[in-house]
Amino acid sequence: MRIGVLTGGGDCPGLNAVIRGIVRKGVQEYGYEFVGYRDGWRGPLENDTVRLDIPAVRGILPRGGTILGSSRTNPFERADGIHRIRENLADLDVGALVAIGGEDTLGVAARLHDEYGVPVVGVPKTIDNDLSATDYTFGFDTAVNIATEAIDRLHTTAESHMRVLVCEVMGRHAGWIALHSGLAGGANVILIPEQRFDVDQVCAWITSRFRASYAPIVVVAEGAVPRDGEVVLKDESLDSFGHVRLSGVGEWLAKEIEKRTGKEARTTVLGHIQRGGTPSAFDRWLATRFGLHAVTCVHDGDFGVMVALRGTDIVRVPLAEATARLKTVDPALYEEVSVFFG
Amino acid sequence: MRIGVLTGGGDCPGLNAVIRGIVRKGVQEYGYEFVGYRDGWRGPLENDTVRLDIPAVRGILPRGGTILGSSRTNPFERADGIHRIRENLADLDVGALVAIGGEDTLGVAARLHDEYGVPVVGVPKTIDNDLSATDYTFGFDTAVNIATEAIDRLHTTAESHMRVLVCEVMGRHAGWIALHSGLAGGANVILIPEQRFDVDQVCAWITSRFRASYAPIVVVAEGAVPRDGEVVLKDESLDSFGHVRLSGVGEWLAKEIEKRTGKEARTTVLGHIQRGGTPSAFDRWLATRFGLHAVTCVHDGDFGVMVALRGTDIVRVPLAEATARLKTVDPALYEEVSVFFG
Amino acid sequence: MRIGVLTGGGDCPGLNAVIRGIVRKGVQEYGYEFVGYRDGWRGPLENDTVRLDIPAVRGILPRGGTILGSSRTNPFERADGIHRIRENLADLDVGALVAIGGEDTLGVAARLHDEYGVPVVGVPKTIDNDLSATDYTFGFDTAVNIATEAIDRLHTTAESHMRVLVCEVMGRHAGWIALHSGLAGGANVILIPEQRFDVDQVCAWITSRFRASYAPIVVVAEGAVPRDGEVVLKDESLDSFGHVRLSGVGEWLAKEIEKRTGKEARTTVLGHIQRGGTPSAFDRWLATRFGLHAVTCVHDGDFGVMVALRGTDIVRVPLAEATARLKTVDPALYEEVSVFFG
Amino acid sequence: MRIGVLTGGGDCPGLNAVIRGIVRKGVQEYGYEFVGYRDGWRGPLENDTVRLDIPAVRGILPRGGTILGSSRTNPFERADGIHRIRENLADLDVGALVAIGGEDTLGVAARLHDEYGVPVVGVPKTIDNDLSATDYTFGFDTAVNIATEAIDRLHTTAESHMRVLVCEVMGRHAGWIALHSGLAGGANVILIPEQRFDVDQVCAWITSRFRASYAPIVVVAEGAVPRDGEVVLKDESLDSFGHVRLSGVGEWLAKEIEKRTGKEARTTVLGHIQRGGTPSAFDRWLATRFGLHAVTCVHDGDFGVMVALRGTDIVRVPLAEATARLKTVDPALYEEVSVFFG
Repeated sequence: MRIGVLTGGGDCPGLNAVIRGIVRKGVQEYGYEFVGYRDGWRGPLENDTVRLDIPAVRGILPRGGTILGSSRTNPFERADGIHRIRENLADLDVGALVAIGGEDTLGVAARLHDEYGVPVVGVPKTIDNDLSATDYTFGFDTAVNIATEAIDRLHTTAESHMRVLVCEVMGRHAGWIALHSGLAGGANVILIPEQRFDVDQVCAWITSRFRASYAPIVVVAEGAVPRDGEVVLKDESLDSFGHVRLSGVGEWLAKEIEKRTGKEARTTVLGHIQRGGTPSAFDRWLATRFGLHAVTCVHDGDFGVMVALRGTDIVRVPLAEATARLKTVDPALYEEVSVFFG
Repeated sequence: MRIGVLTGGGDCPGLNAVIRGIVRKGVQEYGYEFVGYRDGWRGPLENDTVRLDIPAVRGILPRGGTILGSSRTNPFERADGIHRIRENLADLDVGALVAIGGEDTLGVAARLHDEYGVPVVGVPKTIDNDLSATDYTFGFDTAVNIATEAIDRLHTTAESHMRVLVCEVMGRHAGWIALHSGLAGGANVILIPEQRFDVDQVCAWITSRFRASYAPIVVVAEGAVPRDGEVVLKDESLDSFGHVRLSGVGEWLAKEIEKRTGKEARTTVLGHIQRGGTPSAFDRWLATRFGLHAVTCVHDGDFGVMVALRGTDIVRVPLAEATARLKTVDPALYEEVSVFFG
Repeated sequence: MRIGVLTGGGDCPGLNAVIRGIVRKGVQEYGYEFVGYRDGWRGPLENDTVRLDIPAVRGILPRGGTILGSSRTNPFERADGIHRIRENLADLDVGALVAIGGEDTLGVAARLHDEYGVPVVGVPKTIDNDLSATDYTFGFDTAVNIATEAIDRLHTTAESHMRVLVCEVMGRHAGWIALHSGLAGGANVILIPEQRFDVDQVCAWITSRFRASYAPIVVVAEGAVPRDGEVVLKDESLDSFGHVRLSGVGEWLAKEIEKRTGKEARTTVLGHIQRGGTPSAFDRWLATRFGLHAVTCVHDGDFGVMVALRGTDIVRVPLAEATARLKTVDPALYEEVSVFFG
Repeated sequence: MRIGVLTGGGDCPGLNAVIRGIVRKGVQEYGYEFVGYRDGWRGPLENDTVRLDIPAVRGILPRGGTILGSSRTNPFERADGIHRIRENLADLDVGALVAIGGEDTLGVAARLHDEYGVPVVGVPKTIDNDLSATDYTFGFDTAVNIATEAIDRLHTTAESHMRVLVCEVMGRHAGWIALHSGLAGGANVILIPEQRFDVDQVCAWITSRFRASYAPIVVVAEGAVPRDGEVVLKDESLDSFGHVRLSGVGEWLAKEIEKRTGKEARTTVLGHIQRGGTPSAFDRWLATRFGLHAVTCVHDGDFGVMVALRGTDIVRVPLAEATARLKTVDPALYEEVSVFFG
């Protein structure tokens, strides 16, 4: 039997570990052959493939990114997209697909299976950890470790100059990276998209922090929004780049803090370094196990499902369900962490 | 109300994060006072205390070890041990104890509560991750990351010299560190205490690995034992040190591999570097939350319990139950990982 | 004898190692007493001091920042500045000063010694490594390591998405960090302040890189300027923040690249994480030796000098000379490295 | 023109960076072709080669080890060794050789050039940094960083348990790694091969350290020897392994310390993790520049020389001279560092 594998959406440390796990187990235990599709859904759409066997996956475990390449191509946006994918799968005699990706990639996978009966297994991938069906997604732990190390480094500069340091981390719709790295890094203020923040409250925390004679660190998710959203939208500095969300709120907040507290404030935007490079041990473990279980789903003929982590077990959930709801930070958890604010 | 805090057993990255979480929340939310007991149970036994307030816990989050010191003192081994502890607690008007430690420390805590009604809350600590009541313990993720980085480094030497490299990691009774770091590090053989290993099988994996023209990495838990246990016990090199378990099986195995395969083999014993230094982001997160929840247990008057991780939630379990059963590696999980052997 | 110590200018990993070296050797070998002056020249100006003895320097070796605090206060900008400093030194019976800092701090030190006969010894500090009198300054190696790790991480994202990634590093007047981290990180384009860059040439390198089917990494020093400087100055995004230089050229360049090549380009501005946190082993070694030799200068009564690294030796140079000339990147060296461009 | 490249002796982080530098510059600037010889001198001896062009060196900069493999083969130990090498070079029309290695490899290179007129250029490689002709060798900085990080981690365990921790690092004949990592790691005792140590003096330092209520860290080079050498030679635990030097003195010393001070002592032997894995930024910089300059030597027809670092310049020295004298730690430098002992 021949199986296709593709990776879609933004890159994420652990993608190669998933691919390696799928191929090693598929070949050695089930005698499968594999076809690597290039650049997410563009691969099966244009029948663009790459050799995918055991030599091809040797040594990729510690490497970030994806050897298959990635894209945001959506076959449903093409009139004949689905038709062509099914023809191309048949053309190469591909009997099953393993799709590794986030909401968009798995959304396509779900429809392909549910509406067109394509035998698909999904592997969840979101560095933001915002998929409700799984406790954690790989890449998240790596991003949190990188952000935490960065915050550790900012403390000494903040202290030496008695300055406010704002660290903007990833998280457009969910504040998991900000919450985990902010707590782990000993931040004094953590701002997440789930709860609009009050700049005056932020300044109050900062001032109280300085009173305890220590310089504050503010960790803010790129998707965090102040109470009065207008402020941000009006800000010139925000639409003067290609990627507004990536370098917006942090810079804006630092300026507001300077204006309102009279203290010097500086911003560091971690950006892409959070999603690149070698995966943490946890992410290698999780990603590899996702790969091993995904190929077992294929072997069991269990399609239309996604592998997921529950506690320490890998389970299977329906693809449709998996991508249905965004997993955001529970207010009670944010409240729990807020004991360290100010 | 005044609360005593102590840390017992071997040190572990995250202990200071737990202490900080307890004190920050206890003081700010509940207005508690704290007493730090020195060196585990020796502290309350000899009334040896240290100041423990918010200034005392400032800046300790990223620091390994424990500001309270640790020991393996067991009050039940002293005729009047329990009597003195109760007197000393009364003497300083300490109304509750939070004991942070492993099997031994929590075993004492369980008996103190169940047999003598001392109001104790436990926080689990074992770098080996071998407590059945919790999904993970803090310190484990840090140890696995350190071991994985070490294994990453060994690969290049193994390849350049076509040599077998044996890496001995912690784990006397449970192979969790070996299993996780071995998988994450791309080891070709992983040996754990739960399953006696067959040296000839190990050599077979090694030989097949060399045939694929690549040098093998063997990760072995310090507590792993070969089929014929005698061999190890007979080996001179094993009882010539103070800490046999720490530098035994790895060296022995390397020599056996050289004898049986004719290939050069070298051993690296990671030892204490696995348990020291700054905690990983995950361990800071878990340890801090354990601390926050432990002091909430005190506030709820819920004693004789231990905090534990289930999925992403912190729960409470009876202390007695918590320390009842060792969590070892499930044969099915070892089997799952064995696809990468050889 | 009593000696004053101060740290001025921007913080830099290794400052605490210098302080520790001075105090350990001064107390143990020469029986000196020390006075720590707070926040650079503000300390002696306002007689703001802190205890500085062996317990005070215990455990600070691996810590970034400076336990003495820092500032950019310049006593020559105050009418009675010099007068007050001399009075305050006399007041505390301070017989010599060790000033640790960059051009500004050492410039003041040089004048204090040469014009007013104050017994001063200097220790050079510039994270940009742009002091002509010394082979290297501490902090630089740490910054280069941090930038290199970041660039390593950017490669995988660049490859997975076939995107241009621009990494802006520190270096206002000298491109040492960009040159070293760009070379060590395998960048395809490195832009430094010493040589105005031609955006079309940059785009040509990028295009040729893509032709070799690999995504380019551009490392640009914050102080790099394009041939047509106007372009930058006109750009709105540049003066909309407090710290223009810190987040300007990288963003601007990414937009130009997108315009001219049609390829997606993203920028990461490393900012403060380059100058914070624990020093590299080399910086701890260099900073500690600077401290040991600075206190020996005091013991030798050799004032008005600065310690410096020449090869593997610590030497002494006149303060005046030391701060006279900026050490910029030699065109021949830039040429040597350019073999890796494109 | 066709040029052969080989790497000999123990592996070392930076070997691949040298190879990449040679090939990139040789092909792009001089239009050379390259032949990679496998496993040091075994390659030209048996005409065992591997393709070496620009695609072959892509992506190897951050990788430890050597893509050419290595060995300790010495052609002078074979009757017809030299004869065969010259025939094989002629056979493949190889007009020049670049030999990357330590004393042995470069010793062969020197004789090949001086006695047989083979056009050879040498690149020095010794992780121990013990070559007199160059300020530093690549790999050393990486090893020192790894050892320093390990020592950082040992501190917290030492403190928490008030235990002596002995860390054995590489260095058979020279103590550079022990000296640099010991100083950078804040060790309380540093023992090097250049100066026989007195165990009672070591115990005195340890006891005084404990008196200052802090647990001591002892860093010992694998080649360090006590005053009474017999003691070590007699020790059973020393000749029971394949690699005596690698795990001998540290274990022995810990036992002696326990005997003489009554304090618990533990040993960590870093072993191979010091020489594997990705090179530090400094080593990538140095190794790359060595490669660039080595190929320029070939272009200049300047043979029988070795590239070397002097200050910040790459210079050329005669091969014979280069390997003549071992660079050991100057007693004055050891004395300088000893202020931190005890």
